[in-house]
Formats: sequence, C-alpha cells, structure tokens
Amino acid sequence: MVELREIAQRLREWDDILIVSHASPDGDTLGSASALLRLLDKLGKRASFKCADGIPQKYDFMFEGLKLSDKPCERIVTVDVADIRLLGSLKAELEGKIDIAIDHHSTHVSFAEIEYVEAKSASTAEIVYELYKLMDTEISLKAAECIYTGITTDTGCFRYGNTTPRSHRIAAEMMEIGADTEKIDYEMFMVKTRNQLDAELEAMSGMKFFCDGRIASMTVPRTLMDKYGLRNEDTEALASKPRLIEGVLIGITLKEKENGGWKVSVRTNKNANAAEICKKLGGGGHKGAAGAEIAGTDGDTAKQKAVGAAKQYIEESGI
Amino acid sequence: MVELREIAQRLREWDDILIVSHASPDGDTLGSASALLRLLDKLGKRASFKCADGIPQKYDFMFEGLKLSDKPCERIVTVDVADIRLLGSLKAELEGKIDIAIDHHSTHVSFAEIEYVEAKSASTAEIVYELYKLMDTEISLKAAECIYTGITTDTGCFRYGNTTPRSHRIAAEMMEIGADTEKIDYEMFMVKTRNQLDAELEAMSGMKFFCDGRIASMTVPRTLMDKYGLRNEDTEALASKPRLIEGVLIGITLKEKENGGWKVSVRTNKNANAAEICKKLGGGGHKGAAGAEIAGTDGDTAKQKAVGAAKQYIEESGI
Repeated sequence: MVELREIAQRLREWDDILIVSHASPDGDTLGSASALLRLLDKLGKRASFKCADGIPQKYDFMFEGLKLSDKPCERIVTVDVADIRLLGSLKAELEGKIDIAIDHHSTHVSFAEIEYVEAKSASTAEIVYELYKLMDTEISLKAAECIYTGITTDTGCFRYGNTTPRSHRIAAEMMEIGADTEKIDYEMFMVKTRNQLDAELEAMSGMKFFCDGRIASMTVPRTLMDKYGLRNEDTEALASKPRLIEGVLIGITLKEKENGGWKVSVRTNKNANAAEICKKLGGGGHKGAAGAEIAGTDGDTAKQKAVGAAKQYIEESGI
Repeated sequence: MVELREIAQRLREWDDILIVSHASPDGDTLGSASALLRLLDKLGKRASFKCADGIPQKYDFMFEGLKLSDKPCERIVTVDVADIRLLGSLKAELEGKIDIAIDHHSTHVSFAEIEYVEAKSASTAEIVYELYKLMDTEISLKAAECIYTGITTDTGCFRYGNTTPRSHRIAAEMMEIGADTEKIDYEMFMVKTRNQLDAELEAMSGMKFFCDGRIASMTVPRTLMDKYGLRNEDTEALASKPRLIEGVLIGITLKEKENGGWKVSVRTNKNANAAEICKKLGGGGHKGAAGAEIAGTDGDTAKQKAVGAAKQYIEESGI
C-alpha cells in the first residue's frame, strides 16, 4: 500500500477527476466525497461526482454550492468503497478503470490502481482531513461540516468502538472552523417524524429474542413502511435498535427491499463479530456493524437464515 | 468570581475536605466529585464524599477503589451544584458552611464562600480536568473515566449545543489515558433492559402533541413503572424522547414521584428556552434542558400545568 502523501501527489498532478461514492450512500462516503470535491476545487481542479443511488435528503446539505465539472473525467477516485461490488449499478461502467481507492474498511478488497486503506481510521472522512493537511489547504466551513458528518455518522456520534482520539480532535477543529455540529447531530441521529416514531414503536414491539437473549431480531416488512409512508432512508436508524437490549450480543434487523429481497443489518456488542456472521450470508462489513442480503424468500425464512447464521457463529466462536 | 488557580491554591493548603454532589445525582456531579476526590488523594489529602441521594447503579464504577476518609471534614466543596436547594436533604446541615462551589450552570445562585462558575463549560468535569492540569497532577485511568463520564453525560455524548472543542479534546486525552469510552457510552446511553424497552414503547405510544406539533408531552405514571418493575433511574432516558419528533420545539416528560408529585423535565430545540418554561413552574436549569416539580395533583392536571407553561412561553417569546 502507498503512503497518503503519494495520493496527495497524484491529486496535485491530475485534473478532471471523478469522485465515486458507494451505492446506498451513507454519511461517510458522501461526506468524504464532498470534502474531497471541495479540496480539488480549492486546488483549481475540475472534478465531478457519481453514485449509483440518489443522495438521501438529509445529506443534501453537503452538496450545496458544490462546483461540479461536466468535462469527461480522466481519473477516477473512490471514497469509502470496500469492494468493487459496492459501486452497485456503476460497477459495470467503472470496473478496471479506477485509479485510486481511499478507504477505511478492514475487509477492503483491492480493485484500484493505487490503494490507500487505513483500517484503524474510524471514517474515510478522517483520511480526507489528512489530505487537506498534507496539501496545506484551508478547510472551508462547508468542508468542515462534511468531514464532521463523515466522522459522526461512522462513529455513531463517538459511541462506537472504532472512535479514536483523532476522531475527537478533528471534530474539535471542525467546530472551531464553525461547523454546526449540534444541527448535524440532531439531523443525523435524533429527529424523527411522527410516522417514523409510530413505525419504530410497531417494529420494536415485534422484537424477538433467541439463545437466552443473546440474539435479538426485528423485521421491517414493506407493509409497515408503506403503512407509514416511509422511504428506505427513513428507517436507517432501526438497524441499531436490537443490539441495545441488555444481554444482547448480536442484534439483527431485516428490512424488506423494494424488489422483495431482505437487507440484513447485524450490529454486535463486545467480542461478537458482525462481519463473520454476515460472511455466512454472503455479505461483509466491520466487526461491530455488517450487512448482507437474502434474496427471494419471505420474512420468516429470511429471519431464520439470519438468526441461524448468528446461532452458528455463537456455537463456533464460543462467545 | 475568583480564578481557577485560586481554587487550586486553597485545595493545596487544605486537608479533610468534604466533596458534595447535588441531590438526584447525575453523571457530571458524580464524575466531577469522584475525579476531584482522586485528585485530592494524589495530593495526599484526606477527603470524603456526600450526596443526599444514593448513587444510581450505573455510576457505581466511578467510586470503585476510592479511598474515603472518615475524619471530620474541615472544608466543604460542592461540584455541579447550581443552587443550595439542590443539595436536597443535606441543605439544612451544610447551608452557610460551604467553602467552595465549582459549577458550570449559567443559572448558578451564589451560596459558597468562594465561587468558581464557568457557564461556558459543557460540564463541571471539564473544570476538574483543568484543576488537574493547574495542579500538575497525573490523571489516573479511573479519574479519566470519571471525567469522560461527566462530559459525555452532560453533552448527550457530544450532541448538545453546549459541547465545545474543549469537550472533544479532553475526551481524546481521556481515551489516550485508557478510558473505555465505548463501554461508558454504551452503559450511559445505549443499553436498556427488556422491561425498560417495553415501558418506553408504552409511554411513547401515549405521546401527545400541542400547538401544531411544537409541543410534545409524555406521561410516566407510577403504575407504568411498577408494571415493569422500574426504578426512577431506569426511566431517565425517557426525558429526551418528546423533543426528538420533527417540528417539536418543546418536549415535556412528566414522571410521577414516589410521594405522588410530578417531576417535569423540559427539553428544547433551537431557540426555545427550557429554563424560562420551568421558571414558570418554580424550577430552573439550562437553556436546552430544565426541570421543575408539580406537587399534589393527578397526571392530567400536572400535564395541563406544564403544557400551559410551554404554551404561555411560546406566546410570550413569539418563537
């Protein structure tokens, strides 16, 4: 793997750069992309942005006032993309053409010409922050809010085990630049609509426990989302709920996709490894948070498969 | 008001010091007390601790291994106490005898010989941190966890508007000393028992909205707490729920006390001032979080009073 200053060197040399986020984009991939686009703009580069899926409304603010180029791109940089498959519908178009991958997933599978993966970094946004420092470029207020958003969303607002002293120190600096961190955290973590509240209460009332309460699972079918008029992005926070019950080591949330398959989100406590569980289901991720998909089945069968993988993991690992 | 180094000077000169927390103790008053006791111990002083109410179980870890003196105290220092009345049942015994008050409430009402109030500090624990620095004393791992607990509980894990760059930087330093911040945040904010979950779902299902959704209120009667076998400390997190619904400026939670009165917790968004609302009910607190008590009435009447105060505030302030 190269050093970060080599990435900085390439970015200095290049122009017409396409920044790409992963599909089903989250705060870190979008915050990193937007902060990097703003860095390239400061350096006088033309740059543009692509993501297979639309930007959820709550992240829109990060792209306000961003100058995007419409020139054809000459170089392609992915941010926070752990695997080429996570480019979603852009995979076919971009595979084999990616110049730089900047990422922080320990499960990163190499796909770019130049790879910079810092697995100990809580977020990719922190790596983009380091690029600003290396390239001696002032962080604008808007870029500061993008970097903060990346950090706070990937650390669960500094609560997850991936949080490091650096995460806090960069947050302090972003506050000093003027980032409205209170507003960002409120939008990212706290506020919900009455419909979201009602859907959450209904989903959580149906939570089920297995293995003496060490596994908890919750199902969010389309019928529930339709009943309350919720989009996928409106139910993101639900994934964190099952693991927060006392005694639960493995929390599983199954959300029905529009095409009928199920998105499995696994969140773990203590030594339980979410990535190991999701690997059994063909997915992957981090130790504390991972995901997978189960296609072509009903909710009960999907739940049985997911809970089965968690049970098997408990037996094998002896946790 | 004196400078903090004067407080440091007195602590250097004195011995047999009683540290006092406020009644209904929270993470900041207990974290500050415990960190200060550990500082005094490092300096070779005898010190002891008092609080009108018992220490909630989740804060017990902060007092583990603490050496408390049984000598009569010669000096008395309060931490995080905004008003002599907040000493609860200790008020009668201690009033007029308090040497130093260390606090961060902007509503602080003077009661000690020497007062040090830093209203811009997110927590009193940050002031105790500054005392360690001024007195050039090493922060032990346990003291680091106490200081972190004070900061994270009073900032809602860095989410509230009182959070400052200093809060983050001290958190970073406490992590470097070895504080298990993931465990602390999990215990403080995240984990709940199944009974707590069920009680929360029931209480939240009964949430009511007023003034076009700008006020939300929730009632937690003793019958609900008894049904799920919950203690007062088990329902602390409920106070933050009503303000988190989109459009809500003022969130009110009414919790029935054992003696039959009602504890009102007000949490506000944006420019709404919780302290102003609670003042109308004979209480007080911070801009974003305040409290009051309504005695001798049923839940409906208490709710009417509390919601009435909020409505009146909305009319007066024009928010």
